[in-house]
Amino acid sequence: MALRSRSIALMLSFIFVAQAFALQPKVNHPLDALTVDEYWKTYNLLQTAGKLAEKTIFASVLLREPPKAQVLAWKPGKPMPRKVDAVLLTDGKSYEAVVDITAGKIDSYTELKNYQAPMTETEMHGFDDVLKKDPRVMEALTKRGITDTRLVTCYVTPAGYVGLPEQEEGKRIGWGGCTYSANAKYGWDREIPGIFFIVDVAGKKIVRFSDYGVVPMPPTSSLYDADGGSALPGTQPILTSQPNGPSFTIKDGEVSWQNWKFRFRLDPRVGPVVNLVTYMDEGKPRSVLYEGALSEMYVPYQDPEETWNSHVFLDAGEYFVNTGSGGIIKPLQAGIDCPTYATFFSGTFFHENGTPYIRPQLACMFERVSGDPAWRHWDEDTYAISGRPTRELVFRTVATVGNYDYLFDWRFEQDASITVGVGATGILEVKAVKDQRADGKLSANMEGTDTDGKPVQFGQLVAPGTSAVDHDHYFSYRLDLDVDGTKNSLMVDKLVPFKLPDTSLGRKWIWAMKPEMIATEGDAKLNVSLDHPAMWRFSNEGVKNSLGQNTSFEIMPGETGISLLPSSEWPQKRAGFSEHSLWVTPYDPTERYVSGVYVMGSKGDDSLPEWVKQNRSIMNTDIVAWYTVGFHHVPRAEDWPQMPIMWHMFSLRPFGFLNKNPTMDLPMVP
Amino acid sequence: MALRSRSIALMLSFIFVAQAFALQPKVNHPLDALTVDEYWKTYNLLQTAGKLAEKTIFASVLLREPPKAQVLAWKPGKPMPRKVDAVLLTDGKSYEAVVDITAGKIDSYTELKNYQAPMTETEMHGFDDVLKKDPRVMEALTKRGITDTRLVTCYVTPAGYVGLPEQEEGKRIGWGGCTYSANAKYGWDREIPGIFFIVDVAGKKIVRFSDYGVVPMPPTSSLYDADGGSALPGTQPILTSQPNGPSFTIKDGEVSWQNWKFRFRLDPRVGPVVNLVTYMDEGKPRSVLYEGALSEMYVPYQDPEETWNSHVFLDAGEYFVNTGSGGIIKPLQAGIDCPTYATFFSGTFFHENGTPYIRPQLACMFERVSGDPAWRHWDEDTYAISGRPTRELVFRTVATVGNYDYLFDWRFEQDASITVGVGATGILEVKAVKDQRADGKLSANMEGTDTDGKPVQFGQLVAPGTSAVDHDHYFSYRLDLDVDGTKNSLMVDKLVPFKLPDTSLGRKWIWAMKPEMIATEGDAKLNVSLDHPAMWRFSNEGVKNSLGQNTSFEIMPGETGISLLPSSEWPQKRAGFSEHSLWVTPYDPTERYVSGVYVMGSKGDDSLPEWVKQNRSIMNTDIVAWYTVGFHHVPRAEDWPQMPIMWHMFSLRPFGFLNKNPTMDLPMVP
Repeated sequence: MALRSRSIALMLSFIFVAQAFALQPKVNHPLDALTVDEYWKTYNLLQTAGKLAEKTIFASVLLREPPKAQVLAWKPGKPMPRKVDAVLLTDGKSYEAVVDITAGKIDSYTELKNYQAPMTETEMHGFDDVLKKDPRVMEALTKRGITDTRLVTCYVTPAGYVGLPEQEEGKRIGWGGCTYSANAKYGWDREIPGIFFIVDVAGKKIVRFSDYGVVPMPPTSSLYDADGGSALPGTQPILTSQPNGPSFTIKDGEVSWQNWKFRFRLDPRVGPVVNLVTYMDEGKPRSVLYEGALSEMYVPYQDPEETWNSHVFLDAGEYFVNTGSGGIIKPLQAGIDCPTYATFFSGTFFHENGTPYIRPQLACMFERVSGDPAWRHWDEDTYAISGRPTRELVFRTVATVGNYDYLFDWRFEQDASITVGVGATGILEVKAVKDQRADGKLSANMEGTDTDGKPVQFGQLVAPGTSAVDHDHYFSYRLDLDVDGTKNSLMVDKLVPFKLPDTSLGRKWIWAMKPEMIATEGDAKLNVSLDHPAMWRFSNEGVKNSLGQNTSFEIMPGETGISLLPSSEWPQKRAGFSEHSLWVTPYDPTERYVSGVYVMGSKGDDSLPEWVKQNRSIMNTDIVAWYTVGFHHVPRAEDWPQMPIMWHMFSLRPFGFLNKNPTMDLPMVP
Repeated sequence: MALRSRSIALMLSFIFVAQAFALQPKVNHPLDALTVDEYWKTYNLLQTAGKLAEKTIFASVLLREPPKAQVLAWKPGKPMPRKVDAVLLTDGKSYEAVVDITAGKIDSYTELKNYQAPMTETEMHGFDDVLKKDPRVMEALTKRGITDTRLVTCYVTPAGYVGLPEQEEGKRIGWGGCTYSANAKYGWDREIPGIFFIVDVAGKKIVRFSDYGVVPMPPTSSLYDADGGSALPGTQPILTSQPNGPSFTIKDGEVSWQNWKFRFRLDPRVGPVVNLVTYMDEGKPRSVLYEGALSEMYVPYQDPEETWNSHVFLDAGEYFVNTGSGGIIKPLQAGIDCPTYATFFSGTFFHENGTPYIRPQLACMFERVSGDPAWRHWDEDTYAISGRPTRELVFRTVATVGNYDYLFDWRFEQDASITVGVGATGILEVKAVKDQRADGKLSANMEGTDTDGKPVQFGQLVAPGTSAVDHDHYFSYRLDLDVDGTKNSLMVDKLVPFKLPDTSLGRKWIWAMKPEMIATEGDAKLNVSLDHPAMWRFSNEGVKNSLGQNTSFEIMPGETGISLLPSSEWPQKRAGFSEHSLWVTPYDPTERYVSGVYVMGSKGDDSLPEWVKQNRSIMNTDIVAWYTVGFHHVPRAEDWPQMPIMWHMFSLRPFGFLNKNPTMDLPMVP
């Protein structure tokens, strides 16, 4: 009843609230996303300058962030420098343009000689006709009894450099294959096994064709109920709502929630970029993170056959900037991906022809109550119990990268920590195999023998004749932590066994915490280890909490993995970041992308492992953390036809940043 | 409006539902908890047999589970064997009784010679007067200027065996200290520094007194708002409710929710015991877990001083069976520890005098919707998005072990996995130190030097003059997995680098999955490793899914830790389970407690590392997993005065157990 009497007032406030929240397609801050107007300005400046041929493809159009010092010095009302990094592709040649929108001029325009534009949608799917009419493809189709070529689709995918002869000349090289969709229910199990070719992408021709042998295509997978099944008998509703609207506010693009403030933009290449994160402490906003964003993804498949081990994806930089119409970020579903009461945000991206568009529901923000306490205690003396409920703020996007869908969360907590979550779901990439069933193993027709003569497997059956190939996922996050300012140091606090003097009664050994400030980036390659645990803190030597401790934030890993491939292997040279859980470098505005600005065809010369060879000092200076969330995926039958979501997390956690637990005085209602 | 019109019907159904859910204090199944009647029968049988002296303490009264084969063969209506394991303490001597409630007789009654009863509340807090009148204690108090002994409390704690001379004779030995509560706001920072003594518990006297030096007591900590603070301005309500009641049903003690069925009891020693977990698949309940429960906890502190490194707690078996009035489990708060709409369950425990009592709100069960999807996908071809929301069932208890509070969750998921969560919160144990502030370090007055001359630290300031000592937490779970029956095998699927033939184009290395069935328990000591990752599966060689794969469940670790102490160290001999993440043994009904049935004073002879020296076969037989959730705790200022909750998890996950993802056809509403 009480609820009902408030509903008219609430409805009015709803309208007000909803309006206040819409992110204006407007530039309020130097780090805000490009607007429709700005995409058009970029287009017009390039067109006027004669840089656009009829078939020029805009392979990438990204905000060029102003130098950090300039951003930190900027105040509302001051002039706002706005620049764009654009990459154009004309007749197979790549061009890099820096466009100054504010000044209305092109700062630079260069043909890329040693680098290439990321692969574009047109290149991936645009010359199916040419490919499937290649006589070698035609012959392979005939050999497989496939005659209805209307149902055949051939595609190209960027061929990450692996030292193939075809890649030697620095050409724009892809690999590809074909699908056959007769009687298909959905597409991901319709790859024609054995057909593999190397494509000169600029020349639009197959430069090598390989037929790795005929294997019958598996039966099409059974359909699932795409529109939702019936609830199991007895299922009762769970109602979750926020009738007065959310507690966060957004003013000029700045989000405020509880003690947190931050900005964000949706970037076509790396997805959500979170900026200028501060935590309000005793009435004062304190800096935590200048910028946090995904830097690159790396997904290498693990099969002896070239058809499948060619699958080495560096998704963010290599080709998802504009493919699939809208960059890496894809729409979210209210009530499925985010609660129905979530607030959604649109994003402004670009078509291949350089023209902008706005797509709704690309990010969501919501508060939630888990039913878990912030803290609680039972006092043995008084039999008193105390505690507090808690809520959190979730900022979420989803990237779809072909078959896979990745939820990317930034979760802001009341205890002053931030949890970054990656939820992997979507569809497995599968390979047709001869056998319909396994015989007690997980695999069929995907076996080998190790050097000790013991059997190994490369993939698992997930449906009859359908095998999902083993692979890894690595997500490199660039975390420009600025704990109470830009000058930070990396503390590695190792936990080491410590022998007590022989005179010690009872215990002879304990462990001790051995703090070490890491001097240079060469020594800042760190792995999660059960045997050699350590804490990783970003500490400010110049600022103390009330206890006299240097203020710091810790990166706390969750369950994670590193690459098992030797660093001599080409994919590892290109994605060397995956060899360690954490790297730390001094801030350098040119180091944003862990596998380089230009990833297509790269040999890894512009990459984190190369940068750190300089062995620059990382003490008491502006430093950047590169943390990788990694996991190996040995697929299960239960991962088909869609994968149950699998979350991996890490946290940024205050450590002596505050004077005490900030959740002590929370209210009794979450 | 729709909601409102249903409310009368709902209220009626509420009443019905609430009644149906109450766990009858009744024995429906051989594994059900002891009832008030059964505690009384135990008491009466022992009294009649003349085993109870005036001051006999019931140190432990636990259900003695019937042999597994008998339980599995049992059907409702059949006779139900009910027995009790009781441990009595009379005049410092320990006695073990097996009481047959059904037959109304005592099966056995033996004085324990090499073992001891767990420590009791009376022993811990019952002779404060004797202790504080000890002249050495009096002198130490005087030296510290403490004259009001009304405010002094001296206590005893079980002294885990560490080879002290006082422990040599096998006596019942404790260590203790005193607190001084003048002007205290709460108790955990009121330890009088430096006072330490060894107590002959049976003899009620101090056998060694040590004064480790006078350090002023720190200022009392500031009070927090124990009754709840004000919400920050702009905080809007989040409403979560289940107006029709929960979707789970409980019939004769069996919980049914979605495709899951299981039983549980609340055990005074190990807390919640989950039994007979099955997953309904194609209309047929399939066995997953015969029993899952905590087996032991181990919390060793790490300080060179005996005052603090004496803190080595094996909480479940050593003394929390009956201390603090009610065993390990403590009440939960609706709206703080569990949602307001949760269903709560009482537990039946025993007082030290052997009489039973029922305490409410010792467990809660609730469904929740996180706003995360079960799965989702964006289809590049059709621009179609699909997905499903999900809900989970949480079964929760909380253990308070002195200062610490541990939430223990069993979370049942719609994707057929079970997540086990341990949430650590409560109050740090703190040591008074001289300095009120640190000088840029985290520590003050808790430093040492490593063998290489570099500084190490043993604890951190959390308040002025108040240091929290470094320590570990290990939770050993005994998981009697029965995947499709009792006969299972342990598969360790290692991921190993795999060299491709020189003829391979492109890639030269991949990794491969190398499955290995582990033959004996001696080879089943497994660690989480970044460099040597592996999957751990419990596989049934006799049952296949529709793809011909042996059905299996995987134990999937989360972030965890193992002990850093050498195995030569006494605490490690007693809690050797903490040296590996996973151990697997053949089922043996006498192996329930990983550090032994009798932990007080034990030297570790009845413990997991000793058992596995038999090197028994674990192939195609009934096997038990011992998984340890572990973490090192280097406390922060933000952990004071109460610790923000820190969760650690692991999962039991189907792997080829089903034929496909079971969440495909979920409804569109969670």
